[in-house]
Amino acid sequence: MRLRKIPRAGEYIAAHPELAVVGGENLSGNWQSIFEEPQPIHIEIGMGKGGFINALARRNPEINFIGIELYDSVLLRALEKLVENPLPNLRLMHADAANLTEVFEKGEVSKIYLNFSDPWPKNRHTKRRLTHEGFLKVYQEILVDNGKLQLKTDNRSLFEYSVLSFNQYGMKFSDISVDLHADPETYPDNVMTEYEMKFCGLGHPIYLLEANF
Amino acid sequence: MRLRKIPRAGEYIAAHPELAVVGGENLSGNWQSIFEEPQPIHIEIGMGKGGFINALARRNPEINFIGIELYDSVLLRALEKLVENPLPNLRLMHADAANLTEVFEKGEVSKIYLNFSDPWPKNRHTKRRLTHEGFLKVYQEILVDNGKLQLKTDNRSLFEYSVLSFNQYGMKFSDISVDLHADPETYPDNVMTEYEMKFCGLGHPIYLLEANF
Repeated sequence: MRLRKIPRAGEYIAAHPELAVVGGENLSGNWQSIFEEPQPIHIEIGMGKGGFINALARRNPEINFIGIELYDSVLLRALEKLVENPLPNLRLMHADAANLTEVFEKGEVSKIYLNFSDPWPKNRHTKRRLTHEGFLKVYQEILVDNGKLQLKTDNRSLFEYSVLSFNQYGMKFSDISVDLHADPETYPDNVMTEYEMKFCGLGHPIYLLEANF
Repeated sequence: MRLRKIPRAGEYIAAHPELAVVGGENLSGNWQSIFEEPQPIHIEIGMGKGGFINALARRNPEINFIGIELYDSVLLRALEKLVENPLPNLRLMHADAANLTEVFEKGEVSKIYLNFSDPWPKNRHTKRRLTHEGFLKVYQEILVDNGKLQLKTDNRSLFEYSVLSFNQYGMKFSDISVDLHADPETYPDNVMTEYEMKFCGLGHPIYLLEANF
């Protein structure tokens, strides 16, 4: 996603602490306290403008969702939408995925979504990919036992890399698609991200992988 | 592949026992005896007309290859080619993959190729897919420890099924491609099957998965 730095983002986020958490280390072990109901927590890492997690939260009131985003100028868009139409089961967080073990206690998260993550195509940047072994360790530390990780991407190289990475880490695959939109009836509950709508419209295949630790 | 029954096939195969084995149970533990040199053995299950394994055998004289085919009218074509241009490291076999544990001893095979296998799309035929758990057990029983299985297919459903099946069986992935011909320089040694040339020409993606037991 092209980033335009928005100077007022930090200020706007700080003005809505009930909806958007900054950092989050102080909530470790206590995340249910920011929701109206204690329910399983699903997180999206790199939520962008939040269209995906917002739709998921509306469809699944029995789940608490946290949308995590590294860039405050992007999180701002998701927050503005949430301020306008608040949801009892959706909160946002400005944080870096690499720090999540300090943010969540073991077992506090039930499922993690990665949608159209940065592919970091250069070999020397492999470790930055959100599906690199280093991140898988982080996810395993915060997920419940047998917790689920779902990846969607249009990037062939990131997908191929991730299939190998998940498998070599010992994860058990529960679902895969190498053309998510080829048979719409196979995934009737698929929620499209903004990015997915654009690339799907161009006829690019969308890849999906779901696996358990 | 569409099959046309050729009545003389059985007779022609029986007339060339030095190149084409029927059944093969009597050679169990003794497969090196049919080759000129004792070398690692790679097999292709469902070789069709044998274009793939013939090319592999020419390129890799340090490997002994066995092309296996269930239908004698198809094997006939591969055999005619081999009779015309014999190779010291290629033999053919008329056999059913389900019986391979009676044909090879544990560790007698180093690598197995599955190319464009019948996808058996109906759910009630799942067990007939050559990547079903039942066949994976057979392959594991005849392969060396950490023996390799390589799958190529243009069939999306068979590929997705196979990725899940291999992973759930506990196999470790070493290579994957969801569009084998997108970057020709990534697979400079890829040998195209007759089927692959046709479907690749139509612009269909070819899928590859390689994994170890």
